Amino acid sequence: MIVVMKPGATEKQIAHVIERIQDLGLREHVIVGTERTVVAALGEKRDGAKQALENSEGVDKVVPILAPYKMASTEVKAEPTCVEVRDLKVGRGHLGVIAGPCSVESRAQILELATLVREAGGAGLRGGAFKPRTSPYSFQGLKEKGLELLAEARDKTGLAVVTEVMAPEHVPLVARYADVLQIGARNMQNYPLLEAAGESEMPVLLKRGPSATMDEFLLAAEYVLKTGNTRVMLCERGIRTFEDHTRFTLPLASVPYLHQTTHLPIVVDPSHGTGKASLVAPMAVASVAAGADGLIVEVHPDPEKALSDGFQALTPTAFRDMMTKCRTVANVVGRKFGV
Amino acid sequence: MIVVMKPGATEKQIAHVIERIQDLGLREHVIVGTERTVVAALGEKRDGAKQALENSEGVDKVVPILAPYKMASTEVKAEPTCVEVRDLKVGRGHLGVIAGPCSVESRAQILELATLVREAGGAGLRGGAFKPRTSPYSFQGLKEKGLELLAEARDKTGLAVVTEVMAPEHVPLVARYADVLQIGARNMQNYPLLEAAGESEMPVLLKRGPSATMDEFLLAAEYVLKTGNTRVMLCERGIRTFEDHTRFTLPLASVPYLHQTTHLPIVVDPSHGTGKASLVAPMAVASVAAGADGLIVEVHPDPEKALSDGFQALTPTAFRDMMTKCRTVANVVGRKFGV
Amino acid sequence: MIVVMKPGATEKQIAHVIERIQDLGLREHVIVGTERTVVAALGEKRDGAKQALENSEGVDKVVPILAPYKMASTEVKAEPTCVEVRDLKVGRGHLGVIAGPCSVESRAQILELATLVREAGGAGLRGGAFKPRTSPYSFQGLKEKGLELLAEARDKTGLAVVTEVMAPEHVPLVARYADVLQIGARNMQNYPLLEAAGESEMPVLLKRGPSATMDEFLLAAEYVLKTGNTRVMLCERGIRTFEDHTRFTLPLASVPYLHQTTHLPIVVDPSHGTGKASLVAPMAVASVAAGADGLIVEVHPDPEKALSDGFQALTPTAFRDMMTKCRTVANVVGRKFGV
Amino acid sequence: MIVVMKPGATEKQIAHVIERIQDLGLREHVIVGTERTVVAALGEKRDGAKQALENSEGVDKVVPILAPYKMASTEVKAEPTCVEVRDLKVGRGHLGVIAGPCSVESRAQILELATLVREAGGAGLRGGAFKPRTSPYSFQGLKEKGLELLAEARDKTGLAVVTEVMAPEHVPLVARYADVLQIGARNMQNYPLLEAAGESEMPVLLKRGPSATMDEFLLAAEYVLKTGNTRVMLCERGIRTFEDHTRFTLPLASVPYLHQTTHLPIVVDPSHGTGKASLVAPMAVASVAAGADGLIVEVHPDPEKALSDGFQALTPTAFRDMMTKCRTVANVVGRKFGV
Repeated sequence: MIVVMKPGATEKQIAHVIERIQDLGLREHVIVGTERTVVAALGEKRDGAKQALENSEGVDKVVPILAPYKMASTEVKAEPTCVEVRDLKVGRGHLGVIAGPCSVESRAQILELATLVREAGGAGLRGGAFKPRTSPYSFQGLKEKGLELLAEARDKTGLAVVTEVMAPEHVPLVARYADVLQIGARNMQNYPLLEAAGESEMPVLLKRGPSATMDEFLLAAEYVLKTGNTRVMLCERGIRTFEDHTRFTLPLASVPYLHQTTHLPIVVDPSHGTGKASLVAPMAVASVAAGADGLIVEVHPDPEKALSDGFQALTPTAFRDMMTKCRTVANVVGRKFGV
Repeated sequence: MIVVMKPGATEKQIAHVIERIQDLGLREHVIVGTERTVVAALGEKRDGAKQALENSEGVDKVVPILAPYKMASTEVKAEPTCVEVRDLKVGRGHLGVIAGPCSVESRAQILELATLVREAGGAGLRGGAFKPRTSPYSFQGLKEKGLELLAEARDKTGLAVVTEVMAPEHVPLVARYADVLQIGARNMQNYPLLEAAGESEMPVLLKRGPSATMDEFLLAAEYVLKTGNTRVMLCERGIRTFEDHTRFTLPLASVPYLHQTTHLPIVVDPSHGTGKASLVAPMAVASVAAGADGLIVEVHPDPEKALSDGFQALTPTAFRDMMTKCRTVANVVGRKFGV
Repeated sequence: MIVVMKPGATEKQIAHVIERIQDLGLREHVIVGTERTVVAALGEKRDGAKQALENSEGVDKVVPILAPYKMASTEVKAEPTCVEVRDLKVGRGHLGVIAGPCSVESRAQILELATLVREAGGAGLRGGAFKPRTSPYSFQGLKEKGLELLAEARDKTGLAVVTEVMAPEHVPLVARYADVLQIGARNMQNYPLLEAAGESEMPVLLKRGPSATMDEFLLAAEYVLKTGNTRVMLCERGIRTFEDHTRFTLPLASVPYLHQTTHLPIVVDPSHGTGKASLVAPMAVASVAAGADGLIVEVHPDPEKALSDGFQALTPTAFRDMMTKCRTVANVVGRKFGV
Repeated sequence: MIVVMKPGATEKQIAHVIERIQDLGLREHVIVGTERTVVAALGEKRDGAKQALENSEGVDKVVPILAPYKMASTEVKAEPTCVEVRDLKVGRGHLGVIAGPCSVESRAQILELATLVREAGGAGLRGGAFKPRTSPYSFQGLKEKGLELLAEARDKTGLAVVTEVMAPEHVPLVARYADVLQIGARNMQNYPLLEAAGESEMPVLLKRGPSATMDEFLLAAEYVLKTGNTRVMLCERGIRTFEDHTRFTLPLASVPYLHQTTHLPIVVDPSHGTGKASLVAPMAVASVAAGADGLIVEVHPDPEKALSDGFQALTPTAFRDMMTKCRTVANVVGRKFGV
């Protein structure tokens, strides 16, 4: 950590900062520049020492040197992690596709879609049973009934079931039916939920919050990893910006950036990331080209009758076309695609 | 709701949209313009009918006419709501100040601050006992012990205790000690938590998520209101933007905007909204000038030794100065200030 | 245009709005809904009539129906435009690559790079001679000397020269040496410059401003098109968001979105769009996958000695690798790649 | 400048960085930490040395210590600057109000408004003659005729005329009529224009670009200051964020932040900063409370008939009310208000 003093900081202020650094169990190293003095604090820990110094008199700013996360970091584990469950393999050269409806709506719907996904080369089945909805007046999901239908579709097709859990007390119920627990974007910093998901020992798909920085995203993953559960997939699903022609802005550079920073696999959600069916397939292909380890995509047999988010669901035909293109591009960038 | 057809939409596509509108229990009204046809859907409901139409062929976009929230709206209740608990009055001409440390750290700290807040004219005491922290390696609060200390400070000073609750299962515990349940920015869309807080029948201080639109903010409030609990305070605490000279960007225009839109009272948090102690007081005064009904501010006897967020805490002296200025400006804009 | 009245708008207010609509030479069409009245204005023009009505009493909001741009729109010209100059072809199935240094630094540098670009399959040579720099203390380019060197490199390789022009009075000078005039992101709404570039009858590469919406971007293009100059390429180069791990956020969904909206070809700049050399190649490949018609990329023989923006320049080796991958992916998405 | 090496950086890479630092005429200072080595470069200049090092092998990041601007900085000149022209005084304890229409529309309009502004205590008259408009189809201003009318209004009332200049070649013309040259938000980084405005020796009102950071804003001012012209006012007019209930987001914390960072006076534009007439007055009062040295506000005798931006113009009555409140709050924060 580097403490930058203000121009004109006094000897006394500098001495005080040194004392504070020592109180924190760190060693100081003073550098007197032409216009400013800076004090390096050696032996930096990751626990808020930065903040402790930021308010001392004469301090202009404190620059951390170490990343605030540990277990997610490539510094700690250089080899990429592959999350595997049933036939779904995500990471370390494998690209797994998870697809399905926004919400589970009926037995017929989910079975039809599961078959479609399987045949097109997908290995995971998505589908909301507990649905967090912006408005309390919107459809909130079939709840446990939805989980039962997902499990039935899994039994029929072998797809791994990926579904959202919204509260710590639901974790045991959802874990009974699902293969992967999804933490939604709204809950990326719901720490009791992250801990409960971690402790379930189930694989976790963690969605990036729409205003989360990379550090915040990785620190959220760290809450899961800290429980000893290492099967975490990070999911880029778009951020909130001023752009209004898409529902969110999908910043694909986070894929190669995260590959340099963390060993965890990166999944992209082009459905939420664009919010428009006509943009999903090009962005799915682009995600693969950018190096994604997985895709999670919404597909619906009849999007305009979907009970939620129909505007961003692919038709079965569009989905199959997308899969064909993704498979070819996956080869170009050295990924084993799908099943 | 207005359905705008694409240029060149066919008769058949228009007929299909009309049919869909009728299926939704609405009445259609077709307007043929010079370049486009638009179809108004009368009898609009607030439950996702918009999305159902957005994916129909030939449709360019769907424009909602009604706000998606109901109970929070000035259309439903024109008179401003005042939330009262102990001496704290927020709204309908009253401006209440809630102040205290980021985290409860010790008995001495919280009692000293409570006395300070009371003497300076504050009516609420803030202080975190359960602390959501971005990093799992940061101080997480004193938990129940912190709640006990808050209650003791309340008993001594009469201040209303405002403290955060992070999970539905903690609501009964926190409600036993607190006067107001705070829902943090990270949990603004944690719906099970909103519902549990609502059902507690306690007053709720709901913080705006850093990427929440006004509609999303009001819909989150609607989750609480829908339980029958009408004592909701909205708290503007800054949004995430590209600005890097402040921790968040504090968009004060949300104060007069919300006053036009909702009857709920608006509190501003200039501490999180700026993240820099030296900017807090000017922004507190500006918040009062913009018409805020309340302030929530961090103060600490020795900010550089605070266990969390010391960089944004006011010293006791700075806090008293801030209160003096706020009181004068409150008079100018017609607010009864503090106790 | 749809004028949405406030709930409770009076007869008189509605009558006034109708009168205003008629004053504007439009026809009104009143729809009385269950909670609101809306008034459609038929015969909408694109000249600010919206704003004229937004301030009338009793009006809640005004929703435009037509896009504000005309000549750039697929509604006016459905067939994609291909901009051709020398061997550079951008659009209508052709993917052209423009590459070169941030700044022209020396004769040796630009000739070496031009040869590299040509051999790797590029058809355009970029290089700044007039450099807009955030700081007045940074290197500002070689000016006319730089233009001469670019022209020499063009003569040797046949590459089309693409270089920035910063002021209307420089247009004749730059046009004398260049094949394509680049309008930088900072100048996207510099209207006198757009008009001067348009009137030069040279092809124009228009970069998106970092906070421009799609409508603003297309309206900026419209300033050029309105002069009768139809050879405009749109360049997505990243937007400003809260993300701090990249210099800008590269929102690739703008590529398929623009293809639906405008006939103009879309070029992507992954160098500025990420600002980190290690992210450029993956994002270049992703841009091609998303359907880009062109790429503009920074390459430098010795990036760490570059006089500007070395941190985002590819080495010659990295550039050649990138070109190989882009070529393969271009085939997948049906683009003729390079020369 | 602090060069942070990657974990595991080799001796050779560190030696190379040291050599590069020496090449740049700086002195190195190596600190070997527990996990990383950092190299401080002493004698830092402000000319891009940072970028030169960012691309060297083994370097993780480069952290600048000095602010990139000089002449605007409080480090160079601690005393606040007051810009004075006619009766308009902005800065160093004086709060000047500039008001008037978005565009000059007619002789009657501008004379009526000038009288209103003068009587209400304003000292500057705004009014666009050359209007940069997002759409080429919108009203573009009366051009020189508008300037003549502004000058006539000035002669009658003594108000200082503040009007926008859009291109370097217009500077002499506009300078002939105006008292202050306004550089619009779209042109904040139009460097030839900044230099031409600086060289005119006229006072300059520089508007913040909607995606400009504070450093970029101050560096734009530096382009003017570098010509020797020190009469620069900075104008906060709102930034582009995801918020859609206002036209821009007005981040008032920039006012106290800039007061700590620069000696230049800060003007706030609540009209563009909100884009809604009903929000302008509360935000004007809040701006004064936050410590603004000036306000620039749009007012129109009949906003709904304005040729541009009527939706954000105050009526004469609303303007007078705003002035009364601002005057009282100015007293509270220690500003001499208006004339």
